[in-house]
Amino acid sequence: MRPGVTILPLPIEGEFEKGDNVADRICFACAAQGLELLDDDVVVVTHKIVSKAEGRTAPMDQGDYETREALIAKEGATILRRRNDMVITRTRHGFVCASAGIDASNVQPGTVTLLPLDPDRSARSIRSRLKRLAGVDVSVIISDTFGRAWRVGQTNVAIGVAGMLPTINYKDTTDSFGRVLKVTNIAVADEIAAAAELVMGKSEGIPVAVVRGAMVARGRGRARDLVRPAQDDLFL
Amino acid sequence: MRPGVTILPLPIEGEFEKGDNVADRICFACAAQGLELLDDDVVVVTHKIVSKAEGRTAPMDQGDYETREALIAKEGATILRRRNDMVITRTRHGFVCASAGIDASNVQPGTVTLLPLDPDRSARSIRSRLKRLAGVDVSVIISDTFGRAWRVGQTNVAIGVAGMLPTINYKDTTDSFGRVLKVTNIAVADEIAAAAELVMGKSEGIPVAVVRGAMVARGRGRARDLVRPAQDDLFL
Repeated sequence: MRPGVTILPLPIEGEFEKGDNVADRICFACAAQGLELLDDDVVVVTHKIVSKAEGRTAPMDQGDYETREALIAKEGATILRRRNDMVITRTRHGFVCASAGIDASNVQPGTVTLLPLDPDRSARSIRSRLKRLAGVDVSVIISDTFGRAWRVGQTNVAIGVAGMLPTINYKDTTDSFGRVLKVTNIAVADEIAAAAELVMGKSEGIPVAVVRGAMVARGRGRARDLVRPAQDDLFL
Repeated sequence: MRPGVTILPLPIEGEFEKGDNVADRICFACAAQGLELLDDDVVVVTHKIVSKAEGRTAPMDQGDYETREALIAKEGATILRRRNDMVITRTRHGFVCASAGIDASNVQPGTVTLLPLDPDRSARSIRSRLKRLAGVDVSVIISDTFGRAWRVGQTNVAIGVAGMLPTINYKDTTDSFGRVLKVTNIAVADEIAAAAELVMGKSEGIPVAVVRGAMVARGRGRARDLVRPAQDDLFL
């Protein structure tokens, strides 16, 4: 039987606050769980703890749409569509999501989290500190849960990446009939983020998952390269 | 350490042909691999072998756009956008994807696969036969690899589902601060399909993956319920 891929949940006790070091707390939690990080693991971190650690929060009461509107503008997001209470935006990073990624769940009441200013940089910083603390060469993905066009429900996607390329390009490789594949470019960082969500749940204190055994192309990738340039997008 | 989720690749030797029974071949491959299916496993099956087994193929040479156009029309798909050689369509099932899901990879040269006529029915049929053959109560997902709006690259999604609900609805559950979650509805079938892709590769004869340990809501779900109704979609 082939080994396959394993997704290990990493619970972390206690709230995250501005100034916390996310990598340090991951290492501490790994020790508490007896989970040893290995080279080539992908450590998926929900953006929420990164945002809190980076002080990317703001005061807002749930349902206060006036404040939300002001925050969306302050975040520099463009409004693409509106329907009822929902606002679909394109963030400064280029991500298309509701309300510029402003999120009222799993944060102190009266507060919301904002997206990290530069989630790729946050991922690189966590990755290099994990290397220093644990001596392992892992990849890091920072995830958020976004809705999408055409399909019901939300899925986890990668908004920050370090240590791996966000896609695997099968262009010019051959299929099982020896034919050259023309276009397949798999967004593996998004698939790994989605896989991580399967152990994270929504409110159970599991902000990190370790994905082991997935085929990724190691390298200096960025989640920003998962953003389709506006001029190439047929559905903005 | 918590158990987490495991994704096991299931290689299947030999080509699929019209009349093949997909569930039978899965059972045979499980035996060959020493992989025992368990209750609550999710068996993810690439649509390609289902299409071949159901005779859903058509003659077409790669790059023959005239024939492709005729096939798209015959498949009853609506054309949403065109750019260069690319045609984005909405299929009879409601799925938004390139070329009505017509696919020239991993199929005999001069042939393409079409999407199964009713992938939810195909999933139910595989599930019930696995129950009869192996005595296990699994869920089944039939997957395809679709592009998406706004983001680069393709990901695996669920186009057929049986034995589970395609989403987990966290509406009216509470977060870690006791606040009621308003909107989170996770498309877990798509996340499991994405996770399965991590062991499938694109041309390595691994058309099936077994996802073990994922939290899903068992029940009579359909992938068709992942299609956002056109009147609710802001980006069609």
